[in-house]
Amino acid sequence: MTISRRRILAHAVAVGAGTVATPLVAAGSAAPPRRVERWGVYEIALDGPRVGNPFVDVTLAATFESAGKRVRVPGFYDGDGVYRIRFSPPDLGEWRWQVESNAPALQGRSGSFAAIAPAKGNHGPVRVTKDGYHFAYADGTPFRQIGTTCYSWALQSDAKCALTLKTLAAAPFNKMRMLVFPNVESVATNPFVRTGSGPRDWDPARFDPAYFRRYEDRIQRLGALGIEADVILFHPYDEKRGYNDMKRADDERYLRYVAARWGAYRNLWWSMANEYDNIETKTIADWDHLFETLVAADPHDRLRSIHQINIYYDHRKPWITHASVQNGAAVLDDLRAELHRAMTLKPVIFDEVVYEGNSPKRWGNLSGEDMVQRFWWGLIGGTYVGHSETFDPNRNADFSWLGQGGTLVGTSAPRLAFLRQVMEEGPVPGIEPIQPWWNYHLGGKQNEYYLKYFGAEAPEEWAVVLPGRGEAALQRYRAEILDTWDMTVTPVEGVFTMARKNEYDVHDPARPTVKLPGKPWIALRLTKL
Amino acid sequence: MTISRRRILAHAVAVGAGTVATPLVAAGSAAPPRRVERWGVYEIALDGPRVGNPFVDVTLAATFESAGKRVRVPGFYDGDGVYRIRFSPPDLGEWRWQVESNAPALQGRSGSFAAIAPAKGNHGPVRVTKDGYHFAYADGTPFRQIGTTCYSWALQSDAKCALTLKTLAAAPFNKMRMLVFPNVESVATNPFVRTGSGPRDWDPARFDPAYFRRYEDRIQRLGALGIEADVILFHPYDEKRGYNDMKRADDERYLRYVAARWGAYRNLWWSMANEYDNIETKTIADWDHLFETLVAADPHDRLRSIHQINIYYDHRKPWITHASVQNGAAVLDDLRAELHRAMTLKPVIFDEVVYEGNSPKRWGNLSGEDMVQRFWWGLIGGTYVGHSETFDPNRNADFSWLGQGGTLVGTSAPRLAFLRQVMEEGPVPGIEPIQPWWNYHLGGKQNEYYLKYFGAEAPEEWAVVLPGRGEAALQRYRAEILDTWDMTVTPVEGVFTMARKNEYDVHDPARPTVKLPGKPWIALRLTKL
Repeated sequence: MTISRRRILAHAVAVGAGTVATPLVAAGSAAPPRRVERWGVYEIALDGPRVGNPFVDVTLAATFESAGKRVRVPGFYDGDGVYRIRFSPPDLGEWRWQVESNAPALQGRSGSFAAIAPAKGNHGPVRVTKDGYHFAYADGTPFRQIGTTCYSWALQSDAKCALTLKTLAAAPFNKMRMLVFPNVESVATNPFVRTGSGPRDWDPARFDPAYFRRYEDRIQRLGALGIEADVILFHPYDEKRGYNDMKRADDERYLRYVAARWGAYRNLWWSMANEYDNIETKTIADWDHLFETLVAADPHDRLRSIHQINIYYDHRKPWITHASVQNGAAVLDDLRAELHRAMTLKPVIFDEVVYEGNSPKRWGNLSGEDMVQRFWWGLIGGTYVGHSETFDPNRNADFSWLGQGGTLVGTSAPRLAFLRQVMEEGPVPGIEPIQPWWNYHLGGKQNEYYLKYFGAEAPEEWAVVLPGRGEAALQRYRAEILDTWDMTVTPVEGVFTMARKNEYDVHDPARPTVKLPGKPWIALRLTKL
Repeated sequence: MTISRRRILAHAVAVGAGTVATPLVAAGSAAPPRRVERWGVYEIALDGPRVGNPFVDVTLAATFESAGKRVRVPGFYDGDGVYRIRFSPPDLGEWRWQVESNAPALQGRSGSFAAIAPAKGNHGPVRVTKDGYHFAYADGTPFRQIGTTCYSWALQSDAKCALTLKTLAAAPFNKMRMLVFPNVESVATNPFVRTGSGPRDWDPARFDPAYFRRYEDRIQRLGALGIEADVILFHPYDEKRGYNDMKRADDERYLRYVAARWGAYRNLWWSMANEYDNIETKTIADWDHLFETLVAADPHDRLRSIHQINIYYDHRKPWITHASVQNGAAVLDDLRAELHRAMTLKPVIFDEVVYEGNSPKRWGNLSGEDMVQRFWWGLIGGTYVGHSETFDPNRNADFSWLGQGGTLVGTSAPRLAFLRQVMEEGPVPGIEPIQPWWNYHLGGKQNEYYLKYFGAEAPEEWAVVLPGRGEAALQRYRAEILDTWDMTVTPVEGVFTMARKNEYDVHDPARPTVKLPGKPWIALRLTKL
């Protein structure tokens, strides 16, 4: 039962060379631990039937109970007669569990464990904040999304995966979009057991546990770096193998399998599809059904989204936790970004806004400056943005960071680290658009904190006019000039003491403007004293 | 039973002075006509019970049948023992009808009529076009929306109403937003029968037929001018009378009453509410329910929308035919406008974009230039815009065109007539945004017709680069310079013969640019030869 596991470990040891850690979850069917961190993974491994098709024939779930809370967690077959149930305890305390199964070897098994205080760095899963437009970890720590995309990084050689992880460890990204099914050239290529040598010779009713075990190792390694794994369940880029031609029952089984295997990882997000509207075999009703299936299959209730190319999905639907948007122009203007919040009433992540790179295609040849600019406009509009890059010596994006991971070549990443620092220092839970109707183009928190971003313009001064009514608007502010490209913060001497300018606005009559450096990529930060 | 009708007619005759036409629907319970235009109004008037509360006690509907089509049309009580059923025949031919009622005097009554060819100017009701983003009359004639708003115009004196109609007859507007319940000072103030002298002394279960009869006269007079009546059923501006405090059953009865009375008018549109989210007594679930009620009550299936102030309603819901949006900044950019289409997948009308006027409030002091600019950006983004103005000597918008109608003072209306002419000459069914992601800022029809609008910029030339792949993009175009403020069309000499510029674009290498007049409010029109 441990053959394929050993193979993976052997790989890891062979190529890890210190960067690849011990597996975070015990292999095999050893006794589960007595204590697990809150928001960690408690795994039950049980020996059970190997006959027939255990993926289809055997039902398995455990009910966990603690202090009146009950959570029913589906299990999964991991091959070689081993069944697993993975549970991430949402609360501290003693948890008791009992298994239900149609297999006598599994039915009725029970046990207990203690969920103990999380270790440093374990903030729990990311959730949508109460205000509805931002993210925070379960312990309340704000999550300031700076995403990137490496579609098939997790399916590359262990050496390449280690390189990607090394790059990420030094990069600002805290979310990774990644496909389950391969798109570009990959080492791991078979999520399902093969039945012949043709591309479509595979059995949708039999998963290859090694593929998923390998993939979840990558999810966990991202987690160890503080990176959320935004796992993309379907995509339109594979016509050869036909993963979009599975029957509905096969799609459902696939969703249940990944939900049972991966739902307990606290850094797991579900992206139902990339460019869902380019998948011709599924209708909106199909996608809705798959979301309902996923919601039912995932007691951990991880974040859920879906990504489009042309036809925006209806992000108001109840199973969508946040809008995941592809749009090349929306984050060239803070108000275009803000409109996505207005229309969805949810957090918005522009997961694809055209990439930095050297592709001959217009979707992959942004300058670093233009990539960074999009993040800033998204921020001012109260939304979040995603990065990727397409640099390749042969200008083939398949072999770039976007396709396979590896190393970063572009110039945007350090500036996104600077941006992330600005975000971390900013208001909780995030930057709000300030009176977007009235063209102030300000983000921040009314009467407390403002960011003004000038983009490609190079003004030499700006009139410090802030919207706000009543006494609450009459605050004193310190100002700093942020060079978002050179990554400097320059304090402006003195204080801006706001007085009423008119019914809608305040300003400091003694110093109505602030001098600016007359170069592009400048922002002004005003912080209440 | 004809007293109140006669009173209205007397009014009309007294003040109409040639501008007020004969009523378009027969009064009293005379025999219905034998022939009615297709899309006209066939009215059955029947004498029935006067006892009890006929609005509540008597059920009434007629089923109309022709060539296998059946339409069940609810009737309504018009006071003084008269009941009416109004039906607008969707098809030519002989229609037979039979009444169902719990009142023996009405039950089983039957008859027939012929729907004959529509007269000139009767294009039928406006519907959403097949492409999903525009409007056309039932006979296929495009409807190019140029709306305005006079909230309580229909509730003013007959003299003032006649003045408003006279103004409209010379104005470009083809849609009027108007409240059922008064907001500003009005002559007609009581939709419900009064029960005392206090503002809340009225009976929600007894309509005042005179109020509704008067109102429908205004609907019909708009129709005679070719203007759609966008009738607003609820609004938040009346706390005194409490029309938003009715019980659900009263709201339902009200919707059924107006649907039965007015649904047969082919120029009728339903706007469920103005600023619905400022009506504190109703939840989203309430609005959804009211829409379901309206759909069920309106066999004529007129257009349906709802208008917000802050919180966008979910325009994807099935009962919404088009998005009605209030936003002060969205139509300052074609792409912000276009995003509303992308998010709703329906036609978008920006019914409120801040008004032209002299109000001290920022929502009512646009220049004419700024008002017109918003229409143009909306057009380039593939959407539609609404006008109103707030000019008043005392700067009180209540007494302006916006509040009461009357005369137009602003400078935008003639320029909107020019715009409407451009729209009428443009592609069918309407202007589409051209590759909005890629920042061309062009509207039109790919490879056939393009509009480029320069807004407040005053360029002296423009590089004529059009997006388009393949042979289909290699067209020849004539160009015209449109001065959208001075209302001139100046042909550019010669022809632009497109050749490939790169993978994405075409241009004319022999004349890559066009000279422009270097003033604001210019547009360029390119039409395929």
